[in-house]
Amino acid sequence: MESKLKMQLDFLAEVDKMKSVYRQTLLIDKSRQENDAEHSWHFAFMAMVLFEYCGIEGVDINRVIRMALVHDLVEIYAGDTFAYDTTGYESKEAREKESADRLFAMLPFEQAHEYRSLWEEFDEAKTPDAIYASAVDRLQPFLNNARTQGHSWAKHKVSASEIYKRMDIVQSALPDLWEFVEQAITDNIGTGAIQPD
Amino acid sequence: MESKLKMQLDFLAEVDKMKSVYRQTLLIDKSRQENDAEHSWHFAFMAMVLFEYCGIEGVDINRVIRMALVHDLVEIYAGDTFAYDTTGYESKEAREKESADRLFAMLPFEQAHEYRSLWEEFDEAKTPDAIYASAVDRLQPFLNNARTQGHSWAKHKVSASEIYKRMDIVQSALPDLWEFVEQAITDNIGTGAIQPD
Repeated sequence: MESKLKMQLDFLAEVDKMKSVYRQTLLIDKSRQENDAEHSWHFAFMAMVLFEYCGIEGVDINRVIRMALVHDLVEIYAGDTFAYDTTGYESKEAREKESADRLFAMLPFEQAHEYRSLWEEFDEAKTPDAIYASAVDRLQPFLNNARTQGHSWAKHKVSASEIYKRMDIVQSALPDLWEFVEQAITDNIGTGAIQPD
Repeated sequence: MESKLKMQLDFLAEVDKMKSVYRQTLLIDKSRQENDAEHSWHFAFMAMVLFEYCGIEGVDINRVIRMALVHDLVEIYAGDTFAYDTTGYESKEAREKESADRLFAMLPFEQAHEYRSLWEEFDEAKTPDAIYASAVDRLQPFLNNARTQGHSWAKHKVSASEIYKRMDIVQSALPDLWEFVEQAITDNIGTGAIQPD
C-alpha cells in the first residue's frame, strides 16, 4: 500500500481516541459525561440546523462543518480544558500547540497544513466562519447544561457573569438564540444551579 | 421564543440520544462499543480525509459530510441493526421508516423534508454522493474491526464472503483502499477471526 495512504489510515485510527476524551457536559439523559467525538458531531449538526439564524455575513457553512469536525482533535493529547477552568486555561495554548505538532505530523504535509490551519482559524475566532463556529461550539454544551438542570454549572460553581462572558458571541453570531440563552441563565439562577454575581 | 426555533432546539436536544445508540464495533482501545454519534463523526471526518481517493465522478464532499451527520438519526428509535444480522435486516426498513416519521416530525416542514431526503438518498446508495458515503460508512467500522483483531467479525462468526459482499462498494468508490480491505480480510482469516467460506 502507498505509504501516504498508510499514514492517513494510521491517522484515522489514532483519532479514534477522540471517543475517550471526556468533557464536563452530561448527556441529556444524565447517564454519563459526553466525549469529544460526540460533541463534535452534535456541534457540526447543530451548525447545520441553526444556520438560518446566523447573524454574520459571508459564513460558509461547509467550512464551519469541517471546523467542527477538526476543532477538538488537539485534545487527543492535550485533554479537554473545562470552559470555566481559569488555571487550566493558562497552560491550554502551549499544551494544544504541542499536541497539534504531534498529531498533524502523522498526516501528509499538505493535509496536515490544511487541518491545522482550519483548527487555528477556529481557535482565533476572528473570521466569519470561525465566529459562527465558535458560537455553536459554546451553544451545544449550553443546551445540554440547560437540559440537565445546569449540572456542570452547579458542579463547578460557575457564576452568571462568567457564563454571560462566554456566551456573549451568540449575540452577534446567532442573535435569535440570545433569548434562549438569557432565559436559561435566569432560570438556573432561580434554581440555584448558577451563582448570581 | 419563536415556536419554529423552539421546535429546532427540542429536536437538537432529542438527537442527543444518538450518543446512547450502541453499535457492535469496538473503540480501537477495546474499552467499549462505539455509539452512533461517535461513528457519525468518524465517518464524516474519514470522508474528508480520504476524499482524494474517491473513484466516482461528480461527488460533492460537502453533501457527503451532511449525509454522514444525518445518516443514522433514524436509529434513535429504530436502534442499530448489525451489518451482518440477516433477521434484523428483514424488519430494518419498516422500523427505520417509522422512526423517521416520528423524528423528522419534530422539525419545521422544509427542514424535515431536507434531512429526510438526504437520509433516503444515502439509504438507496444510488447517486454518486450516496455511493461514496456508503463506502466510507462501511470502511469506518471495518478499520476499527481490523484494528481490534476482528473483534465483531469473530464475535458474530461472520464469513469472508459476507464481508466481501458488504465491502464490495469500496472497489468502485475508493479503489486505492481495496488493497487494505483485502489484506485485512486475509489477515483475519489467518488468525481465525473471520470464517473462511
